[in-house]
Amino acid sequence: MTPADGASSESQTQDARVARTRADISRAALAVLIDEGCEALSHAHVAEIAGYSKTTLYTHWPARLDLIMLALDALGEMPHLDRTGDLRADLAGELRVFRQAVLDLRLDHILSVMAQWASVDEMARVRDRINTEGQRPLRQMLSEVLDGAELEAAVSMLTGVVACPTLMFGTLPDDAVIEAAVGLVLTAAKT
Amino acid sequence: MTPADGASSESQTQDARVARTRADISRAALAVLIDEGCEALSHAHVAEIAGYSKTTLYTHWPARLDLIMLALDALGEMPHLDRTGDLRADLAGELRVFRQAVLDLRLDHILSVMAQWASVDEMARVRDRINTEGQRPLRQMLSEVLDGAELEAAVSMLTGVVACPTLMFGTLPDDAVIEAAVGLVLTAAKT
Repeated sequence: MTPADGASSESQTQDARVARTRADISRAALAVLIDEGCEALSHAHVAEIAGYSKTTLYTHWPARLDLIMLALDALGEMPHLDRTGDLRADLAGELRVFRQAVLDLRLDHILSVMAQWASVDEMARVRDRINTEGQRPLRQMLSEVLDGAELEAAVSMLTGVVACPTLMFGTLPDDAVIEAAVGLVLTAAKT
Repeated sequence: MTPADGASSESQTQDARVARTRADISRAALAVLIDEGCEALSHAHVAEIAGYSKTTLYTHWPARLDLIMLALDALGEMPHLDRTGDLRADLAGELRVFRQAVLDLRLDHILSVMAQWASVDEMARVRDRINTEGQRPLRQMLSEVLDGAELEAAVSMLTGVVACPTLMFGTLPDDAVIEAAVGLVLTAAKT
């Protein structure tokens, strides 16, 4: 083994260790964000939850924004509904999946932390990607019956049926409200 | 003047001074929240903007939540539209006023800070009051043509047309999207 090989293999081990640490910190940061909210997302608290030293966190991810970005990394794909082909049932089903994700993933915490840090370009890009992906199935379904300004309006309107009560009042719509929202949009689309 | 009178008058002067300080700090805290967002709302920064010492702030309002509540105190009444009696025009007008308030009052910052602190009872009450007041005219107008689950749905849907793009993408709907949203709800309500 030449000295160069030795250095390279050592640096690979080092890379693997950083990657593992990163994954651990990501999961811990997301757990803190989900369970306790953005205010609790400090280096000291995430280090404690993840079982690493504060120094390790500060060395690799010095800013608070770094911790938030790590948490969003661990968020993964938004859950979505498998379509049945019945537009009315599928729209209501997708909104129920969204409602459940608000509970399971505390999307109210995620949405508000992303909104709050949006002045940072890097965060704005991550936020736009996560939210675009989140709305994609709704947009796809609604584009079967609406287009232009009506499509834009309807995507925000159906998102709002779940997001507005969540963010504004800490409540979630029941099935009747979700079905009424889908009904209003589809009734209007038909006329 | 008896000593009791003297003490009382001194304590009134003291009260007036605290009230004036409180009003100054409230306005400064709101300015920081609007201009720079929640992360910037620290005792040191608000003290600097308001022209008071950090010690004064910490003495009267020791917690970060206190500063946020002071900022919300200074928010005042949400702007609303004067009604003309034409439901379609009034709904669209109210949404345009809401859109303008997002720009003027940075309601995205306000909404996200209230969502983020909602685990504190005191904040949840203030948030519910502000948001209920904010939605009142929309709810009143929509109750002329809808009720029950459809009314609940429509209030969230029209709020969402402005709030969702704001909070999720940092953008605002144009007039065509606002009018399309009102059109969808009123068309459905008529059939």
